[in-house]
Amino acid sequence: MELKNDLLLRAARMEPIERAPVWFMRQAGRYLPEYRAVRAKHSFLEMVRTPELAAEVTLQPVDFVGVDAAIIFSDILVVPEAMGMKLLVEEGKGGPKFPDPIRLYTKMKSLTDSGIVKKLSYVMDAIRLTKDRLNGRVPLIGFSGAPWTLFAYMVEGEGSRDFRHAKEMIYTRREDAHFLLRKISDAVAQYLIAQIEAGADIVQIFDTWAGILTPEDFQEFSLEYIREIVRLVQQHTQNRAPIIVFCKGANQSLLEIASIGCDVVGLDWTIDLAEAKALIGDGVALQGNIDPMVLYTTEHVITEKVAALASRMGEARGHIFNLGHGILPDVEPDNARAFVRAAKNAYEGLANKS
Amino acid sequence: MELKNDLLLRAARMEPIERAPVWFMRQAGRYLPEYRAVRAKHSFLEMVRTPELAAEVTLQPVDFVGVDAAIIFSDILVVPEAMGMKLLVEEGKGGPKFPDPIRLYTKMKSLTDSGIVKKLSYVMDAIRLTKDRLNGRVPLIGFSGAPWTLFAYMVEGEGSRDFRHAKEMIYTRREDAHFLLRKISDAVAQYLIAQIEAGADIVQIFDTWAGILTPEDFQEFSLEYIREIVRLVQQHTQNRAPIIVFCKGANQSLLEIASIGCDVVGLDWTIDLAEAKALIGDGVALQGNIDPMVLYTTEHVITEKVAALASRMGEARGHIFNLGHGILPDVEPDNARAFVRAAKNAYEGLANKS
Repeated sequence: MELKNDLLLRAARMEPIERAPVWFMRQAGRYLPEYRAVRAKHSFLEMVRTPELAAEVTLQPVDFVGVDAAIIFSDILVVPEAMGMKLLVEEGKGGPKFPDPIRLYTKMKSLTDSGIVKKLSYVMDAIRLTKDRLNGRVPLIGFSGAPWTLFAYMVEGEGSRDFRHAKEMIYTRREDAHFLLRKISDAVAQYLIAQIEAGADIVQIFDTWAGILTPEDFQEFSLEYIREIVRLVQQHTQNRAPIIVFCKGANQSLLEIASIGCDVVGLDWTIDLAEAKALIGDGVALQGNIDPMVLYTTEHVITEKVAALASRMGEARGHIFNLGHGILPDVEPDNARAFVRAAKNAYEGLANKS
Repeated sequence: MELKNDLLLRAARMEPIERAPVWFMRQAGRYLPEYRAVRAKHSFLEMVRTPELAAEVTLQPVDFVGVDAAIIFSDILVVPEAMGMKLLVEEGKGGPKFPDPIRLYTKMKSLTDSGIVKKLSYVMDAIRLTKDRLNGRVPLIGFSGAPWTLFAYMVEGEGSRDFRHAKEMIYTRREDAHFLLRKISDAVAQYLIAQIEAGADIVQIFDTWAGILTPEDFQEFSLEYIREIVRLVQQHTQNRAPIIVFCKGANQSLLEIASIGCDVVGLDWTIDLAEAKALIGDGVALQGNIDPMVLYTTEHVITEKVAALASRMGEARGHIFNLGHGILPDVEPDNARAFVRAAKNAYEGLANKS
């Protein structure tokens, strides 16, 4: 199936594009009434595990917001679950939790990184179904959490401000930490390869908790594993799908991230995108990086911020519009649509000027 | 009163020092059993407002941990309170809150920045009392929250992950935001000048929430106001006390921060201190920046991390040992003492080598 809109893929490969593509992290989510209608009838994990439901909400932002890509509806914590951890989502009680976190080596050993793809076959089924329904309209993005972020959740048991137990492990039990990180990395690599084989056109690795590490620890406990995953995925899929790496809060390590072999570097809003571009050069594309809070304002402010970003960047080539983090659950859908409209027009005026 | 140990002041002024001084942000706090003993008998705000009690806990880390400076026990939110906001601390319910946050211009107008020093005279009394009791053993640090951080609390009403209302205000009501920020800045400048006149040997400006801003917004809504405060404080005190500026999470703006005229730049742990030094040069001293989580480990790991930092820095001159954020409330006091011991010895081996 030929893609009718392959802007995201061309942007990721630094090819010429007529305009910069736009999508949102967490775009299949609670801010959409169409999503809430599905969610009212099903639990979060039921939606994740039922390909029909996952495909339905994956398509919603394409249909109702006009983004240039779909991203498969899922959760990063399905990987630890497939490795053998019990995953719990208590309704109305915040995010998913692991009631039995991994703190001991014996527990780490009991986790498995084999058979991962089979256990996660519902994700691959959802990808195939979504690709079918997309019918080539836009590319489909697959994704996984980065090993460090999954490690942080697995050791801590849930989201945390400071991930004390995960930190304690890397500071006092370095060998154990690496043992677990290696296992997670193997699982993530297999998982991403399977997503691409099932039809994902491009994949993103989310390192949501990169920003709590020192630059040195980020290198050792996060980036080296992402590098290995990128290598494995490219090797086993003949480099068929571009790879986006988003390490939130790790802007001190930008040059290092840009040099691991990925195609796109995702950036949060605490760095100037044009400065990042000047620093990194033309080797990778950049994704981002409007403050998600901008979507709480007005169409006027949103349009202004998007236009200002395009103006700073200068040319569409190598830029993928996105927020600097996930879209927030109580954003007005009309504001998300205003962002998409503004992004689609942002480089047009610039091109005309030149 | 001549100071017996003026290492912190000499380090801040980039003068030669025999070893790098060490202190902790939030060092007069819950991790100390001696603090908890006082706290058991008095409410937090009672301690803040009673010079005798504030002085007592201010001295504890000097007596029981061996740090090279005392920092006056207080809270950054006493400034908004003095400006006219009702401040509430519900026991066992997290940090202080403003039940009536500032969202409207009419409310902003009703806040006052005059008479601030008189209303906060209990802080100046605590400083005088503490200086007296210190008897010149170590310098006393005064402090204030930075305008942006105070603004964020005042608009939001309490601590928050994303400070949505504060962000909304800077994005949609820029003039109002500047009106309020200017008022806060005037109050902060007066407050810091009064602290120095009362005896504070050095002051620190804490911009705890700098890291949620884009670099552009940080410049406009935070750094410009800190710059003005630094200028006013230096002018009105004949530059008698060095000024430390700590903008947590604003590492993209490091060069800009270092150039506002302050003496010391405080750094969190997400930047390599030696790289920061290489970038900034010799104009200002650097304070930090061990991950606070390191104090949850062992004496061995703590000593290793402190030594590694000294080794990266190369020389004691211009370095003030500290954590990259406040010391955590459940740290073992022995681990804090291990940090202080390690810091006091860290550059000694290096000096002998050279």
